[in-house]
Amino acid sequence: MSRFEEKTLHSKTIFEGRVIRVQLDTVELPNGNTSTRELVMHSGAVAVMAINSENRMVFVRQYRKPLEREILEIPAGKLEPGEDPDDCARREMEEETGYQAATLKKVSSFYTSPGFADEILYLYEGTGLTEGEARPDEDEFVERVELTLEEAFWAMEAGEICDAKTVAALYWWKSKVLEGK
Amino acid sequence: MSRFEEKTLHSKTIFEGRVIRVQLDTVELPNGNTSTRELVMHSGAVAVMAINSENRMVFVRQYRKPLEREILEIPAGKLEPGEDPDDCARREMEEETGYQAATLKKVSSFYTSPGFADEILYLYEGTGLTEGEARPDEDEFVERVELTLEEAFWAMEAGEICDAKTVAALYWWKSKVLEGK
Repeated sequence: MSRFEEKTLHSKTIFEGRVIRVQLDTVELPNGNTSTRELVMHSGAVAVMAINSENRMVFVRQYRKPLEREILEIPAGKLEPGEDPDDCARREMEEETGYQAATLKKVSSFYTSPGFADEILYLYEGTGLTEGEARPDEDEFVERVELTLEEAFWAMEAGEICDAKTVAALYWWKSKVLEGK
Repeated sequence: MSRFEEKTLHSKTIFEGRVIRVQLDTVELPNGNTSTRELVMHSGAVAVMAINSENRMVFVRQYRKPLEREILEIPAGKLEPGEDPDDCARREMEEETGYQAATLKKVSSFYTSPGFADEILYLYEGTGLTEGEARPDEDEFVERVELTLEEAFWAMEAGEICDAKTVAALYWWKSKVLEGK
């Protein structure tokens, strides 16, 4: 048992949506005090870092309602319950960008916001790209954008690239280039 | 106006907590279809990447209720409404680790999960560390841990370092070392 464990005294579902479930837990802290924890449960997601034959990374531009604006991100998508992350990565890459990757390798996985959410994101590297046609879902509006490392860092500087997985992807890419891999 | 904008037709607050507010919006998509968006509103957070005089990065181990386990993260904390991120970074660094940083420089900022949340995280580099005593809040249980770059990558491999900001921090640190900065 963890020394810092927070024992659940009571748990209540507040909201059950298509994407998230919100839960309010009452917990006993290690010092015996009681507190509440607001929890967002999510089925997880995948994202793909893929560099094409011109040394450009593949991004998608899309509107994000929580931010009320369009941003540039690496291709990503939500896991269906029970779905294999590998399959999801392949599917989202093809649907959103039209690219097929000969190889998809898991590079990292991380929780996006462990203070209140259990969402995990699996980060893949896609190599051996071949180009096809994007087939986004009927209600999905995305535009493919390809950038060099330098352009991508400018886009981050300008605030167009501004989400955790894509910022992590850029630093990963930079280390890879610096290592000469 | 953005081509991909999702026009809000209706907005309803589902839950108002101490940390998050959950909102359900009905939107009109660019193709005229209607959909719903589940949104988690958050006041934002800061995190500090700090390397001490022994070339070790400063982390904290803490229990994260959404994951039901302890993980290793860079020091971080939630912004109070209206709080200056610089002040928050300084405060959280001192409270959680006991270290004071002579300089705190904003390196990046990103949305942790732009598909459903508006949480932004400001990522700082802290330099010129001097050591004092950690003063966590009464109900906060954290333990300071210092790791070399190699140890930190092992901890990521082992799944102990597993959150977006800390993974981004490790790749940032690695690029910095490779650049010889």
